[in-house]
Amino acid sequence: MDAALQEMLDARAIEQLMIRYIDRVDANDPVGAAACFAEDGVGVYWGDYHGREAIADRLAEILAGFTVTSHHLTNVAPVITGDSATSQAYVYAFHRRVDSGDFLHYWGRWVDELRKDEGQWLFVRREVVGVGTMVPGDAERGRSHPGHPGRLLTDADH
Amino acid sequence: MDAALQEMLDARAIEQLMIRYIDRVDANDPVGAAACFAEDGVGVYWGDYHGREAIADRLAEILAGFTVTSHHLTNVAPVITGDSATSQAYVYAFHRRVDSGDFLHYWGRWVDELRKDEGQWLFVRREVVGVGTMVPGDAERGRSHPGHPGRLLTDADH
Amino acid sequence: MDAALQEMLDARAIEQLMIRYIDRVDANDPVGAAACFAEDGVGVYWGDYHGREAIADRLAEILAGFTVTSHHLTNVAPVITGDSATSQAYVYAFHRRVDSGDFLHYWGRWVDELRKDEGQWLFVRREVVGVGTMVPGDAERGRSHPGHPGRLLTDADH
Repeated sequence: MDAALQEMLDARAIEQLMIRYIDRVDANDPVGAAACFAEDGVGVYWGDYHGREAIADRLAEILAGFTVTSHHLTNVAPVITGDSATSQAYVYAFHRRVDSGDFLHYWGRWVDELRKDEGQWLFVRREVVGVGTMVPGDAERGRSHPGHPGRLLTDADH
Repeated sequence: MDAALQEMLDARAIEQLMIRYIDRVDANDPVGAAACFAEDGVGVYWGDYHGREAIADRLAEILAGFTVTSHHLTNVAPVITGDSATSQAYVYAFHRRVDSGDFLHYWGRWVDELRKDEGQWLFVRREVVGVGTMVPGDAERGRSHPGHPGRLLTDADH
Repeated sequence: MDAALQEMLDARAIEQLMIRYIDRVDANDPVGAAACFAEDGVGVYWGDYHGREAIADRLAEILAGFTVTSHHLTNVAPVITGDSATSQAYVYAFHRRVDSGDFLHYWGRWVDELRKDEGQWLFVRREVVGVGTMVPGDAERGRSHPGHPGRLLTDADH
């Protein structure tokens, strides 16, 4: 097949993997979300979690804090080389806390490494990189996040 | 044509149908939005509306409450079988109320059935499923929504 | 190549151009963002800016006001005719102000003209059209924006 078409098919498969992962997270199904990783995959959720079981446990821990999560995926930019890929994507997520019912908004990036195993793209490494959060009263306005990968500094940042 | 390429063309056509629908909604054009349905299509907007005229009337009723709507489509996941498809997609929508000027944020899912008639994908059934809303003072924090389709319950939900 | 497949490749290239532009904006790299325009391109950011240098200067001016920007692209609807295209796309953007740390939410449309030069799509004209903003206390609730392109008026608007 034409290389540009193959690249588009792979890009679409990668995006659908990300969408399936999110669907499982928002369905409160950490095992289903972890199944989107390769067996030896690493999930970086404020700490490194190795393998599907550890990833599922970590996701369960995070999800236990919320009655609602809604992760909206945009700006998916994979760089595909044969059966390997890297990718940056954007996420905005709405949450409701179990304890208070308060909202939590989150803006971040997913920085991924992927591999195609037997025709199926999977995450080899997936890191969540925060750029912002918002809670009632904007109480976290001064909270620091890693920010957009490679963000350039200017006078305003000092 | 290669089946995977045909599937990608259909997926793109379905996503563009959803985008056209949104463009017409946000342009306050309920008739144009309803034209994205098959003649015998059903729109489920907190109640079932059969056919384009009933759908347009219902959309007009909803849109009359807002001076601004902005529907942001993500996570489109169609499952295509020949000339039929089902799909789940995410929506986040910003609104301004006619009466107060207050904002209303909405997070939901579009759960769709689609059909390709003479080369044109159309909605056969489109249901809006809410997962969250936010209004000034977060006054709706306790409001119940159907939530993410198939969401699994845990101890936290009881 | 099949015309429908070529159209899909072009649509994907255009969307990736928009994503690269956003990545550079959110990386606080106005020169990199301006490089997504044709040499004779025009950026319309509340005023017309002609050419990459003027566009980069204008973007730098805007970006100096924020410590964080996060632009989430959706609803990309290009209309492609050979090596030319027009497009409407949606953006939602989260910002943090340099001075106060306050958030600023922005909802808008990107209305674009594009051209393919030597296989590379570039912006010939890109206009930002606002439909809404939100700041602490919803202090801008009465602020007027151009609104969704071609929005139809009804009784509620008078």
